[in-house]
Parts: sequence; C-alpha cells; structure tokens
Amino acid sequence: MDTTLSRAVADRVDARRVQARLDALSAIGGQAGGGVTRIAFSEEERVATELVASWMREAGLTVAFDAFGNMFGSSDGNEPGAAASMVGSHLDTVPNGGRFDGALGVVAAVESVVAMRDAGYASPQPLEVVVWRCEEPVRFSQGKAGSLLFSGQLTPADLRPIENPPFDLSAALAREGARPRRAADRTVTSCLELHIEQGRRLERAGRQIGVVTAVAAPIRLRITIQGSADHSGATPMAERRDALCAAAEIVLAVERCARRESARGSVATVTTVQCLPGTMNVIPGSVTLMVDIRGIDGTSMDRLVKRIIAQGDQVGETRGVMVQVDLLSQGTPTVFAPGMVETLTQIVQAIGYAPMLLPSGAGHDAQCLAHLVDVGMLFVPSVDGISHSPDELTRPDDVVAGVRALAASWAYLSAGRRAFSDHR
Amino acid sequence: MDTTLSRAVADRVDARRVQARLDALSAIGGQAGGGVTRIAFSEEERVATELVASWMREAGLTVAFDAFGNMFGSSDGNEPGAAASMVGSHLDTVPNGGRFDGALGVVAAVESVVAMRDAGYASPQPLEVVVWRCEEPVRFSQGKAGSLLFSGQLTPADLRPIENPPFDLSAALAREGARPRRAADRTVTSCLELHIEQGRRLERAGRQIGVVTAVAAPIRLRITIQGSADHSGATPMAERRDALCAAAEIVLAVERCARRESARGSVATVTTVQCLPGTMNVIPGSVTLMVDIRGIDGTSMDRLVKRIIAQGDQVGETRGVMVQVDLLSQGTPTVFAPGMVETLTQIVQAIGYAPMLLPSGAGHDAQCLAHLVDVGMLFVPSVDGISHSPDELTRPDDVVAGVRALAASWAYLSAGRRAFSDHR
Repeated sequence: MDTTLSRAVADRVDARRVQARLDALSAIGGQAGGGVTRIAFSEEERVATELVASWMREAGLTVAFDAFGNMFGSSDGNEPGAAASMVGSHLDTVPNGGRFDGALGVVAAVESVVAMRDAGYASPQPLEVVVWRCEEPVRFSQGKAGSLLFSGQLTPADLRPIENPPFDLSAALAREGARPRRAADRTVTSCLELHIEQGRRLERAGRQIGVVTAVAAPIRLRITIQGSADHSGATPMAERRDALCAAAEIVLAVERCARRESARGSVATVTTVQCLPGTMNVIPGSVTLMVDIRGIDGTSMDRLVKRIIAQGDQVGETRGVMVQVDLLSQGTPTVFAPGMVETLTQIVQAIGYAPMLLPSGAGHDAQCLAHLVDVGMLFVPSVDGISHSPDELTRPDDVVAGVRALAASWAYLSAGRRAFSDHR
Repeated sequence: MDTTLSRAVADRVDARRVQARLDALSAIGGQAGGGVTRIAFSEEERVATELVASWMREAGLTVAFDAFGNMFGSSDGNEPGAAASMVGSHLDTVPNGGRFDGALGVVAAVESVVAMRDAGYASPQPLEVVVWRCEEPVRFSQGKAGSLLFSGQLTPADLRPIENPPFDLSAALAREGARPRRAADRTVTSCLELHIEQGRRLERAGRQIGVVTAVAAPIRLRITIQGSADHSGATPMAERRDALCAAAEIVLAVERCARRESARGSVATVTTVQCLPGTMNVIPGSVTLMVDIRGIDGTSMDRLVKRIIAQGDQVGETRGVMVQVDLLSQGTPTVFAPGMVETLTQIVQAIGYAPMLLPSGAGHDAQCLAHLVDVGMLFVPSVDGISHSPDELTRPDDVVAGVRALAASWAYLSAGRRAFSDHR
C-alpha cells in the first residue's frame, strides 16, 4: 500500500486555518457560556451555510443543493455522470450544543480539498464536500434527516415534526427560494466522515484517532406503568400500588441488564420519565419511561430487550401494577466493510498515529450511505466524553490529527477507486 | 353519659334530602366522566356557596362571611358575645375532583341543624355551620387557607399563588363586593368536621364510622441529584454517572425507610420527578424528587427524614453523583383531645355503629382550630380509598351513617358545654 500521497496531503493541512474556521462557525449561534444553538432551518444555520459555501468556492468547489437543502461542493463543476468521492458532516446543533459536533467534519472536509490542491494532487475522482442538513432530532423526531432523504431511506412525508407549533417544512423550503441544484444523475462511490467520538474511549486509551468499525443501532422502548393514584398521606405503605416505586425498580433493572451485556458493547438507558399526576399529596398513579438501547451486536441487543421485558413483568407481578413494554423502533447496526476499516487504519498509521478501532454508539450521517457505497468514519477524542453541551471539547492537537487523517484517507480513496464492498 | 338526645337527633336525619343535596352540589362544576371542578373563587364556587346559603337560611340560620369569604350560618342571628359550637367543611375541589371531599361535611352540617330542630331540640349554645374557603391547594401553595386565616395562623400576605398567571386575591375579593359580616367578637368553643377518609382503613375493617384521633403533619423534602448528561449511545455502562439510576435507588430507599416506620403510622412518598434533559439520546444528568412524609409521631418522622438523608448520601457516594436533600416544610401533627375521641366514640356506638379509631393522613380544616377549641373529626369510608378523582365514592349507607353520627355528636356537644382540653 503506497501512502506517499496520503502523507504529502496530510502535511498540507493548515492547523491555524482549521481552528480559525471552527471559531468562526462557533460564533454563529454562539451562546453565553460557550454553547452553540444552530438549529436546522434557522437564521444561524443559513449564515453558517453561506460561510461554508464561501470556503467551498475558495477551495475551487461548485456549490449546489438538493431539494431538502443538503449542500454539496463539487470539484468538477457538477459534470453530468461523474462519480464522486464524498466527505462531509453537518452544521446543525442541538439547542446549546457543542462547537465540534458536526462542524468539525465540515471544516475538515473543506480543508482536505485545499490540502490536496496545495499538495499538487488532482484526484481522478471528483471530490464532493457535503453538508448534511437536519442531523440532530430537533425539528423532527427522526435524526439524520438529510442523509436519510439523500440515500432514499426516507421521504419528506415520513418526517414527524416534534416542536410546538410544528415545524412547517414546505413553508421553510419555499422561503429559501430557488438555489443551484445538484445534478440528479451525479453518483457517489464512497463517503467518509470525521466526527467527535462523544464518548471517552479514545481519551482513556490515550489515542488521537479512532477508526469506526460499526455504528450501533438504537432500539427504543416505551414502558408504561399503571398503579393507583391514592392519597399520599392517607394510604398505608402496605396498601400502595405506587407506579413510581415500580418504575424505580425497572430503571435499575434496565441498568443491571445492560451491565450484563457490557462485554458485547450494548448499552441501555432510561432517558425520560413522565410521572403522573405529579402533585405533592398524591401517590404516583402512572409512570412512562423511555428506554434507549444501543449496540452493534443484534443478538446481545435482542437479549437485552427480552430481559428488560421479563424484568418489567416481574416488577408488575410483585407490586400489583400493570407494566407494558412497547417497542417503538428497532434499527439494524451498520457494520463498515472490513477492507475500509483496514485501509483507514493503515493510512492513519502511515501519517504517524496509532489508531484505535472502535464502534460508534451514536448515529452519524455517513452510515446512511453504507448500504449504497463504501463508507468509513474517523473519530477524534471528546474531553470527558462530553457532547451536546457547552462543555464539549476536542483539544487542538486532536482536531489537527483528525483533519490530517481525513485528508490523507480521502486522497487515497479518490485516487484508487478501490471498492471495499459489493455495492457496485 | 346520656345519649337520649343524640339518638333522637340522629333519627331525624333525612337520608333522601342529604343525597339530593349532594347530587345538587356535584352538578355545579360537574364534568363529563363524573368528576367535579369547583375551584375556590370560581363561578362554580359562587353558585355552590349561594345554594348552601339558601339551605342555611331554610334551616333558620343567618348567613355571614369573613374578610376571606369563609361562610358562616348561625342559629342565633349572630348575637354579639355568644360562644358558638361550630361544624363544617369546604366546598372547593381540586380540578376534576370527587363529589364527596368537602361537600359531604357541608351538607351534613346543615342537615344536623335541621335534624336538631326537627327533634325539637334548641341547643343552649348557638350553632354555627361553617364553609371554609380554599381548602385545596389549587390557588395557593398552602391548603386549608380559610381555616388557617380564621384561626390566625396565616395572614393573606402568606398566601403564595401557584397558578400562571398568579391568582389575584385582592381583585377577586373586590369583585365579590360587600357581604354580611360575621360578628368580630363571636367566639367558638368547639368544632366538628365530617369528611371522607381518603384511605382504605374503614373499608377494609368493614366499619362505617371512623373517629379521628390525630391528623398527620407533612414534612416535605426536595432531593436534587446531579450526575453527568453524557451521550446514551456512546457512553459505556461502567463510565456513567446516571442521575436517574441514582434517583431510582433513592425512590426505593424512601419506600424502604417508610416501611420500617409503618408501625408508628408514618408514611413517605416520592410524589414528583423532574428528569433532565429528558431527550432520547442523553443520559439523565439531573433529577429532582419531591418527597411527602406524613405521620402523627414526630420522633418516627424525624427518624425517617434522617434515614432518607443518610440513604441519599450513600447513593451519592456509591454512584459518584451529588445528592442534596432540602427540607421544604415541616409541620407538627395534630392530636385530638382524648376526651373528645372518647365522647365521639360513645355517641357513635349509642346510635348503633361500631366506630374505628384512626389517624388521618390527609389534612383537614377542623385541625386548624385544635390549638384553640375542642375539635373532633368523623370519617366515612372511601371506596378503594380513592379521592381527588371522578371515581371518589362513599356509599349511600355510609353517607347516612356519617351524617347521623355528626348530628348526634353535635347535639351532645352543644348541650353539654363540656371542655375536653384546657383551651379556655
């Protein structure tokens, strides 16, 4: 494997420009306290998108959009029929989110194009930087909306607004008016994404670069517990059917069941609680829990779900309350092609880093293309694993390492036209 | 003890009139589904108050109000200086509350006056039916507002509105205009209240009448748990500081601690949960629990609070989360004079019922006068212990038993001028 080109391109990455562009983006929607609020379809997103478009043009790319507003910057002027090598991430954030989630991958993609150019490398394949829209599930219950729409796994009608009042997609798109359109027959052969880990594994292992082997798929459960809303002063302890006490046992059971599957990489979290009636003098009569289960091993996840249901039944029986477990959604884990993982690993090593192979617990845009084209992902460390928070931080050295790894990998892929899977 | 008068008065109670009046009241603010919404200071409360005033006048009572709108119906035309024997309850409800909570005690008090009159009994003491205002903590954080104001334990400035927009007491009182005023120098020597139990003890024991020995005082705690709001997909089980799992352990610890104090009559309930950020892909970072502790044994309650705090500390230490317990309020249990309890017991037995002595877990208006005058309370069963609900039900036979017991007791007290405590 010849990594000469990759090393040359990595060396042209400009650390100061990368940091300056991350700073510029974080100022758009920047909050007191260091967080960033840049919701999809907001004025902040519009300003950030225009700024990135200007960087794309400066890098020699032609900017175009699809009907949903995913933005593409292409090195070949969008010639019909040319199959591109794609790299990107997203610009939208959760409310008061972090400075790196999404934005890093976008800045890194543009920087990679500039680094390739500065290294005197003109890739055989057209390069295409993509800014996926609406990655965060803020406007809609579904995250990764832009990449799912692009990859044909979703239609606009599937998007369920979750805000109050509900977000009006048609009106928002109409307001944006006509924009240059990405060629409909443009095909893509590969897709890379650099993202922050949003976990602590790289940090704890002392590694700067992660090569993602798979992306966990979430299973979502709703657990409804129905007890009896009696008077909290007048009902003896022995006569209660307290839905919250039952819920507490289930919360701990979910944690216990997930710990048993830790070795298989599965996790489970009760993320929300609704406790009714929620008044000071009434025993909770009904509680609804939402459970988020993630993993990359379907057998382990199924076992986890079965055990949670069994534990719920047992709590219901012991406490004389009704426990119902509903499966809200069940995804399939995305496993990246071993050839891609191996190639990225070798390139990362070639430019001087010791990569760590690890699965992603969170979902990402690039995975949505994995059933169509060769997809690979690189991670950089998140300090303390924190994300979706003003405290989200990836250290400058790690940022540069990540951008170098992405540029080096993209240069290799766009030159080789090597297929890692049987998509084509 | 001569119970001839009591038996004669009990026999004049008109079961059909009582039931018809309960039906008439439940139609004012009646909801689809059988509940009643008759909030203090609402139009529904005004209509119900006028209806009861008409019944009072029909019974020969003179109607007057105090500055807060507590309503009094007096048998002597409010002669200055006459010390009265008082009986009453409240007409306000929680939203979509029950048909008996409060209303039963008001209807029973008026019926008792009529039964005494019909029995040809003119009491030495003036009789005073009272309708306490704002017993339910709907407008203000403080329940029993009317009786606490009347007994000088509260001033209007102490009332904290909890609605949004906040309830404007002065404006509401101004809208009601001038009404006949209760004589300022009228004194009271005793106070009785008939109420539904709001628990299951009478029903389970197969008794129709309860003689209340004491009223539990609430201690309210707020428990705040601060963990770490990490990504629910990307954070391994072993690296979490999940505030909700910690909260679940505390919920169960509260239940366990309370069960240990069951023999002393103390209970504790986590009644509300706030879990943040409450989004599907984030581990709960902070949880706030509200705890309602009731009992009639101060030592037992104090021990309960200490154990809950100790358990909270232990959970915090084990899980690496911050647990803080704040004491929001601490009341003193009301213990009724043993002489009053003994007298009511004998009267109830004399008219043919086997009374059950029991403490009240819920608070009631009459208890607010217990530091000033002789106070007694009678309970009738609540089917399944349900209250504050459209399903609240006291069976017709039990309603009649309760009214008979109240009328018989009031006749005895108003004749004897016997003091059970050293208030005077």
